[in-house]
Amino acid sequence: MSGLSGLLGLEGVGADTLLTLLDLAESMRDVLTRPIKKVPTLRGKSVINAFFEPSTRTRMSFEYAAKVLSADVMNFSASNSSLTKGETLLDTARTLEALKPDILVVRHGASGAPHFLASRLGCAVVNAGDGIHEHPTQALLDLLTVREHRGDFDGLAVAIIGDIAHSRVARSAIHGFVTLGASVRVAGPRTMLPIGIETLGVEAFDRVEPALEGADVVMMLRIQRERLGAVPLFPTLREYSRVFGLNADRLRLAADDALVMHPGPMNKGVEIAPDVADGPWSVILEQVTNGVAARMAVLYLLAQGRAGADAWLKGGLR
Amino acid sequence: MSGLSGLLGLEGVGADTLLTLLDLAESMRDVLTRPIKKVPTLRGKSVINAFFEPSTRTRMSFEYAAKVLSADVMNFSASNSSLTKGETLLDTARTLEALKPDILVVRHGASGAPHFLASRLGCAVVNAGDGIHEHPTQALLDLLTVREHRGDFDGLAVAIIGDIAHSRVARSAIHGFVTLGASVRVAGPRTMLPIGIETLGVEAFDRVEPALEGADVVMMLRIQRERLGAVPLFPTLREYSRVFGLNADRLRLAADDALVMHPGPMNKGVEIAPDVADGPWSVILEQVTNGVAARMAVLYLLAQGRAGADAWLKGGLR
Amino acid sequence: MSGLSGLLGLEGVGADTLLTLLDLAESMRDVLTRPIKKVPTLRGKSVINAFFEPSTRTRMSFEYAAKVLSADVMNFSASNSSLTKGETLLDTARTLEALKPDILVVRHGASGAPHFLASRLGCAVVNAGDGIHEHPTQALLDLLTVREHRGDFDGLAVAIIGDIAHSRVARSAIHGFVTLGASVRVAGPRTMLPIGIETLGVEAFDRVEPALEGADVVMMLRIQRERLGAVPLFPTLREYSRVFGLNADRLRLAADDALVMHPGPMNKGVEIAPDVADGPWSVILEQVTNGVAARMAVLYLLAQGRAGADAWLKGGLR
Repeated sequence: MSGLSGLLGLEGVGADTLLTLLDLAESMRDVLTRPIKKVPTLRGKSVINAFFEPSTRTRMSFEYAAKVLSADVMNFSASNSSLTKGETLLDTARTLEALKPDILVVRHGASGAPHFLASRLGCAVVNAGDGIHEHPTQALLDLLTVREHRGDFDGLAVAIIGDIAHSRVARSAIHGFVTLGASVRVAGPRTMLPIGIETLGVEAFDRVEPALEGADVVMMLRIQRERLGAVPLFPTLREYSRVFGLNADRLRLAADDALVMHPGPMNKGVEIAPDVADGPWSVILEQVTNGVAARMAVLYLLAQGRAGADAWLKGGLR
Repeated sequence: MSGLSGLLGLEGVGADTLLTLLDLAESMRDVLTRPIKKVPTLRGKSVINAFFEPSTRTRMSFEYAAKVLSADVMNFSASNSSLTKGETLLDTARTLEALKPDILVVRHGASGAPHFLASRLGCAVVNAGDGIHEHPTQALLDLLTVREHRGDFDGLAVAIIGDIAHSRVARSAIHGFVTLGASVRVAGPRTMLPIGIETLGVEAFDRVEPALEGADVVMMLRIQRERLGAVPLFPTLREYSRVFGLNADRLRLAADDALVMHPGPMNKGVEIAPDVADGPWSVILEQVTNGVAARMAVLYLLAQGRAGADAWLKGGLR
Repeated sequence: MSGLSGLLGLEGVGADTLLTLLDLAESMRDVLTRPIKKVPTLRGKSVINAFFEPSTRTRMSFEYAAKVLSADVMNFSASNSSLTKGETLLDTARTLEALKPDILVVRHGASGAPHFLASRLGCAVVNAGDGIHEHPTQALLDLLTVREHRGDFDGLAVAIIGDIAHSRVARSAIHGFVTLGASVRVAGPRTMLPIGIETLGVEAFDRVEPALEGADVVMMLRIQRERLGAVPLFPTLREYSRVFGLNADRLRLAADDALVMHPGPMNKGVEIAPDVADGPWSVILEQVTNGVAARMAVLYLLAQGRAGADAWLKGGLR
């Protein structure tokens, strides 16, 4: 594997690269548990978080990841930006690039926006979520969390439940888990299952029970209330919760030690019952911590390249 | 005294702890006057400012305090957060905690919110103002400012004037000054004097003159224009100013060298006359500077514990 | 030349100071191209960006400049500030000053606001754009960009095209270029040409062609759509573009190797044609990069004084 020039999605990213990123992230998580959570490795490197869609947790996670690595980080959000002055996305991004960041982290409501920018900019671009397409660092933290608890992906059954069609979280997770050898099942209302999803190597169900059956990992997706719009994709939140929500009863269908995951923020009482979200099976808060570690790994690999990652993993740099 | 595990209010905080914090703050103020305003003591520690209510000066004061101590600091504000996506306060706070900050600084419009979070989170919580309850770092900076000018609190008469009932600034200041041996008088319109305020060890007046009589410290509170709402607590701003505002004439009732204080932002011409606010008696801008020092002291004590504070005060760490 | 005590505008700033700033900026630009973009020179110094008008690019440019120099930087924006609570600009600024920054960077919609503050505050004030008055760091980056390509200003013909009357960019650029020996022509609709502009040492035209004739530098100004208000200064955007916009045909009037500049954000298709903005003549993105370098130079000179600048330029500090 060579170094990455950016991270736009997990589609097409090989097992070798994924495992390097997970190894790096695991070691970065160790840094986060030290009394002094700081390594000087990216000192003098700079990261711009360019968020064209509101976000708090992902932006803060990238920001903290950069700071622990001693990089300089600046936040750009579209709401108070030149975009409102009629500048195009590409011109805004070129202007940000001209500030000479090493890495541009981009979140955008339009699927493909980070790819569009990456093909036209010289700096490394990291996709922090684009439309309904991909959210690769979320999938990395999901993988990291599962590996932490299971050690391996071989033979694992992963159930992803909810609005598969509109979820960049699901799409990136599918690529990651399938590449690393897990079997993935997705389930949701038919209106939320994309046609042809099986071509990604998953089994699809329009009922939640067969997907949960014996699952080792249950990943619930956030239900977007805005899908309850003019052409609602489901009748009511209560109906959705009754048929697709994860409660303690339903969780018994899964393996005894099944992990419960959610990308957050949760609609407790809708897609997930409060006692399940906060129960002993839940690794939801670990996912947040692992998010910082996963983003540190990505920033590190992009800034230092494969040789740097090898040196780090051999322990010479920590 | 053992180290603090958080700072939720000054109620119940003993003189010993207060004096340690003031000693630390005094020494931190020295750091702020150096050509190089930076000490490496909290390098690798992290602070999240979680502001669920708008604030500029308090947030910047905490941010700068953290930076001078070399801590990493991140700002979270509720306006662009997941709260609008239906997440509870506790879940938002747990998510922030999962980012592994050492200290979570919380401002919230609901009285008791920081206490609620502190009892459920593992990290240290600092109250940066909760509803009409407490604002302990404001009181610390008030104490620091008074001690700077008077040396001691014994026998000092402190007058706090304004909307006592709705002021977290007043409540924290009362606890602090009373604990350190000052005598405190409060004054305001009857509608703004909480019933039973005397149980906090203060004298209460519904006229300003007896409170000012011979006072060594005069602390004016900001009048909240929003109290002039559907059920107004006072007739008009002009009427309030005429009866309760501090002007030069009225200030003559106080001691000759009485200190004039205000937590800011001021409504000049309402609760305080411009010539008094900017006059030779005013220590209002010193309060702002001391706010940074007081917050540095709190962050330091929480991150380094009592042993660290002792070492700092002995001069070994500066 | 003594050190600067602030930078409020380029009017009255001598060639000696300008050249020192350009020399510093040139060397700062080298820092930005290193693998480690960080120098410790302003460690322990602090900068507050006080923006009373929305801005993204200028704020980020100052923020990044401060960070590369290792200064602490805090952003204050008026939207979520005490100003909405009725505090005056001066009181807000005094409060910011009481946080003990070394440098206060001020953008304000009112012409003269930074001067007003500078005369009343003790810390150094840098004007980051005030109303229709000056934007001195923009002019510095313009000068830096031109010197980079032309080496010298003697005999250079600079054309500035657009809404001269309402442009702080134009005003600062005029002072800078004239002081350094270039000849400056301005052109725009008569409604956008201030009466008496010739007293600044420029030639004024109400047609674009004579201004472009043989020009070595063509600086296009952003057209403010808000000028199309109740009393419009020009009929339509299309009409403006047709008569005053820079397209490839019109650019042929200028010198063969004329530089095309724009302060951004651009209205492509209005004041500048897309192929010109992105063409081989364009140095518009270099301007953005040079903006960081120019602001580093200003912060450096203000914090370290002339002696520090001399030492830096002799290479001892880099």
